[in-house]
Amino acid sequence: MARWQPGAPERLQKAALELFATRGFEQTTAAEIARAAGLTQRTFFRHFGDKRDVLFHGQDVFVQAFLAGLEAAPRDAPPMELVAAALASGASMFPDERRPWSLLRQSVIDANQALQERERHKLAGLAVRVADALRSRGVADPAATLAAESGTTVFGVAFALWIHETGTRSLAAVAADVLDELLGLVTRRSTRPTDPARRPDPSPVAGDHRG
Amino acid sequence: MARWQPGAPERLQKAALELFATRGFEQTTAAEIARAAGLTQRTFFRHFGDKRDVLFHGQDVFVQAFLAGLEAAPRDAPPMELVAAALASGASMFPDERRPWSLLRQSVIDANQALQERERHKLAGLAVRVADALRSRGVADPAATLAAESGTTVFGVAFALWIHETGTRSLAAVAADVLDELLGLVTRRSTRPTDPARRPDPSPVAGDHRG
Repeated sequence: MARWQPGAPERLQKAALELFATRGFEQTTAAEIARAAGLTQRTFFRHFGDKRDVLFHGQDVFVQAFLAGLEAAPRDAPPMELVAAALASGASMFPDERRPWSLLRQSVIDANQALQERERHKLAGLAVRVADALRSRGVADPAATLAAESGTTVFGVAFALWIHETGTRSLAAVAADVLDELLGLVTRRSTRPTDPARRPDPSPVAGDHRG
Repeated sequence: MARWQPGAPERLQKAALELFATRGFEQTTAAEIARAAGLTQRTFFRHFGDKRDVLFHGQDVFVQAFLAGLEAAPRDAPPMELVAAALASGASMFPDERRPWSLLRQSVIDANQALQERERHKLAGLAVRVADALRSRGVADPAATLAAESGTTVFGVAFALWIHETGTRSLAAVAADVLDELLGLVTRRSTRPTDPARRPDPSPVAGDHRG
């Protein structure tokens, strides 16, 4: 008799990730995941469409976290401030205790090209939704697309740094730093010695690239 | 008797695109493409691995065009100048007479999710190669990744504008304008009349996600 299992999705996710990481994603079946979690296959399919879904569960919650931050930002905020607000809010979905899970999940994705494409699809979907939200705030294109795509890039880079970090910076803090780094990079392009007034920040890290 | 057919790849590409656009990508076979081009299926497979390959042929030439521009840039150029050089050089692969082909190709890709994922994969591959080239120029991470990803975003946005444009701007000119737009967007974030002396961004929104 199938009953509601408290904590079943979490148990299934944990079991799945361990199997994916040790045995490989392709080599693991939904039946094996259910068995390792001490649950039935029927319970598995009550929570997940397939084994890939275990890794990409909650896309909508993920996107909504970004949009909530954007919507809470002041109405007159410029586009990249809206993106910064979206990033701060989206990053708050990843508390520090989630880092080991995120790191293990990423190692599974990095080992499988189809999963990498699915992950890119997820981030592309995020960029589309953020761009839509920017447009509804009156940001014109191509600025809306550029700002949304830049925000997604910053999130991806920050996430990759954060999961490997041993320090105590939150993902939101890492994302804010990466956004500043992008600012420094892009602004440095326009900073000519003859044009020192154009930008207030000498951004010493931007010069570190000289090898 | 199979003989070398002059212009066969171009004829096959043209026939394929027309079939994909009118009939749909899924509904078209390699055999039909060959027949429409007046060639044998064997000739088709001499030039393309499968029908998808017709749309994504020449990825390496595409990437090399960007890298050539980057490599020709001055050694002390900052990262975004290297990216600008890569963009200008990559864009030169798309002369104006290629615009109708590019527009038709894009309409085929936009109608098929698997092709969209393949296109994202292609641009992700470009970003990886540009980031590698930046690293070999001594650009540290995450700057190398950020700059390369930003360049790819600019290319994607510029390309989408260019194929729909009725004007006479070259893709390189559109890409330069889009890069300037990104510059303006990101720089605008840092311009605070009330606080010009401090770091560019007091990041007032960073706390907004709480709650």
